[in-house]
Amino acid sequence: MSQTQTPALRIGLAGLGTVGIGVVKIVQRHAALIAARTGRGVEIVAVSARDPKKQRDADLSGYAWETDPVALARRPDIDVFVEVMGGHEGPARLATEAAIASGKDVVTANKALLAHHGLGLALAAEAAGRVIRFEAAVAGGIPVIKALTEGLAANQMRRVMGVMNGTCNYILTRMQSAGLPYEAVFEEARQLGYLEADPNLDVGGIDAGHKLSLLSAIAFGTRVSFDAVELEGIGAISIDDINLAADMGYRIKLLGVAQMTGRGLEQRMTPCLVPADSPLGQLQGGTNMVVLEGDAVGQIVLRGPGAGEGPTASAVMADVMDLARGIRLPTFGQPAVTLATPIAAKTATPAAWYLRMTLLDKPGALAKIATCLGEAGVSIDQMRQYGHQGANAPVLIVTHKATRDDIDHAVARFAGTGVLVGAPVALRIEEV
Amino acid sequence: MSQTQTPALRIGLAGLGTVGIGVVKIVQRHAALIAARTGRGVEIVAVSARDPKKQRDADLSGYAWETDPVALARRPDIDVFVEVMGGHEGPARLATEAAIASGKDVVTANKALLAHHGLGLALAAEAAGRVIRFEAAVAGGIPVIKALTEGLAANQMRRVMGVMNGTCNYILTRMQSAGLPYEAVFEEARQLGYLEADPNLDVGGIDAGHKLSLLSAIAFGTRVSFDAVELEGIGAISIDDINLAADMGYRIKLLGVAQMTGRGLEQRMTPCLVPADSPLGQLQGGTNMVVLEGDAVGQIVLRGPGAGEGPTASAVMADVMDLARGIRLPTFGQPAVTLATPIAAKTATPAAWYLRMTLLDKPGALAKIATCLGEAGVSIDQMRQYGHQGANAPVLIVTHKATRDDIDHAVARFAGTGVLVGAPVALRIEEV
Repeated sequence: MSQTQTPALRIGLAGLGTVGIGVVKIVQRHAALIAARTGRGVEIVAVSARDPKKQRDADLSGYAWETDPVALARRPDIDVFVEVMGGHEGPARLATEAAIASGKDVVTANKALLAHHGLGLALAAEAAGRVIRFEAAVAGGIPVIKALTEGLAANQMRRVMGVMNGTCNYILTRMQSAGLPYEAVFEEARQLGYLEADPNLDVGGIDAGHKLSLLSAIAFGTRVSFDAVELEGIGAISIDDINLAADMGYRIKLLGVAQMTGRGLEQRMTPCLVPADSPLGQLQGGTNMVVLEGDAVGQIVLRGPGAGEGPTASAVMADVMDLARGIRLPTFGQPAVTLATPIAAKTATPAAWYLRMTLLDKPGALAKIATCLGEAGVSIDQMRQYGHQGANAPVLIVTHKATRDDIDHAVARFAGTGVLVGAPVALRIEEV
Repeated sequence: MSQTQTPALRIGLAGLGTVGIGVVKIVQRHAALIAARTGRGVEIVAVSARDPKKQRDADLSGYAWETDPVALARRPDIDVFVEVMGGHEGPARLATEAAIASGKDVVTANKALLAHHGLGLALAAEAAGRVIRFEAAVAGGIPVIKALTEGLAANQMRRVMGVMNGTCNYILTRMQSAGLPYEAVFEEARQLGYLEADPNLDVGGIDAGHKLSLLSAIAFGTRVSFDAVELEGIGAISIDDINLAADMGYRIKLLGVAQMTGRGLEQRMTPCLVPADSPLGQLQGGTNMVVLEGDAVGQIVLRGPGAGEGPTASAVMADVMDLARGIRLPTFGQPAVTLATPIAAKTATPAAWYLRMTLLDKPGALAKIATCLGEAGVSIDQMRQYGHQGANAPVLIVTHKATRDDIDHAVARFAGTGVLVGAPVALRIEEV
């Protein structure tokens, strides 16, 4: 063989938690396979983690150690800085900036970092001729960044949707299957280790919102605008809502939706009803799903594990192997300097709404509610009154298409009727 | 701007049927989007089709015409030869060979060509430093070649499955929803234009088998071996089987399965039962689904349109845009010279089986059948005898795990019992 062998791609790995150890295992277990598929090897040169003495489930003896990830990022003997520490400020940000400044490509699983600083990092990387890849940051093992950036590149994207926080989907589906209230399942999830240290990142929709903002930037060629994502968590979802929705053929999901409309870019991460027999409705437990809709291709649905050692490491290594193969694309699929500043849509696309409320058992109570809806321009598709619980009657209304504003106006009027017990619940019914 | 602009990628388009016209439309409609995403334009320089005078749904006036696709492939003013003619011999093969010989990259939607001649074409292309891409050849608009070759590149693949012929899935799901026999729905499909000129390509499983053999080569790093695919079409599937399977919680699908086992490479494209509530079981109509199972990622499911102008052109253009972006990979994900010659597994992985037969209404008939199964080493999981139709009793058996050989041996013994009416139906129950 007279071919010159390309030297192995050398990586510095920052973070030796679940994902980092998963990366180590794949590099060690699949050395031959990686070499065959990339035409060169991939080797870990150095690693960093907070505690070098901690017992870890992999042999790290062959790697140099850095206690400071910034020092790791600057090492002259690495080509790619792999960041799987997490956190959108502090060491992760500093080390990523240092890596770019010292001429390294970056592979990251850090959705928070990119949602907050993605534009600046991409601009810096592209000015330096470097690449940032982040397949592992969105929907874990599902190769959705690649599908959107490359596989569907010839499409004007219409809408991107997804269930992208496995913990929330676990909680919602477990509430239904076990008939347990939110608080009980939340506590289960905490004990199972499914929740972030700050649980609001999960159940508040923030983590999933980060992911949506990244997909949105690629899909619509716009600057990441996480601050414009309408965020609503799952903390207010009751077992009653889950059961009543099921009764009508729906499931409740924490659903992300991004679409470009005539009114601007719409980005929402909110609990929504979806048909029980749709792929999104059928999604159980911690599995993730992303739905990509393009003008040429129609609808593509991707489903797979959204977290965990193997799946996330698989995505990190896909990016590393792309770099080993010479695949180099701009962070968001087109040069960051060409990304448009999105105008956030002030009102979301109209939808049917699910309204649940409890009414005092008074003559004309229901008529008063119906009047409020009519005055706010909201028409009723279905209304169900359930058996009385003492003096109060749970009422369920499904509206025809209405805007969020219309619904809010109607709900504001309800207060003046004097027939309402507690606050009504309003959930969007997304057409999927 | 002092940047030098990379000149547009120039394509020659052979074939102006549905897919070819779809490609023309995307190139024309999305010129700006394609330029933004690739950093350069993509332009069609010349086209070829059998009948230049035929009325077509696109403005072709700006393109040079060639009546001979080989002449098109050799034009010095094209960079990429796009082949959407079809057929595994004749013009498609000659023109693809000519394109490679004259230094062009190739993008093709032609699964038959690659299933039969993929290795030779890949070797020739790679020797010449050229690339052959074929996203559109498998599962239409679903970016499955990219997912497998790149997105899951860090995985040792365990199993690849798929429903990859929309016509067969249309027929099977329509039989169930309308309660119609195979022949009636086959005729409907013909009238709707869903069938190939030779319908056996669809209903005989050949087209889907071609696709499976391509996925298999990438997944397992082996030479395409279409001849080793166990092929069985859907022509023998009766409405009775569909209904009885549904009764037990299953759906019948023409399912492709490729897996590497200790006994060699197993490739099957056969009607199978899958659980009704699995993603594969829920797949309706002409939609395709591919399931990819890797050692790190676990299970990834991809779902989308398997055919049609927009979806197929979307996939063709993804490949073209990859080339415009400088993404150049070997045809099967690793150099063709390194692909192993697969040893075909002589026996498929054991599975549970669905057996349907009609027995004469004689005392001991069922016992005789049970004895045959026992003698062949097949144990029974469930048995249902349905209400008598005249003198004959339909019997349904679900076995515990058994090999195809065991089942064949048992069925061969049935003949000697003298209690069987007609031939029994044996369908594999695939664990998905």
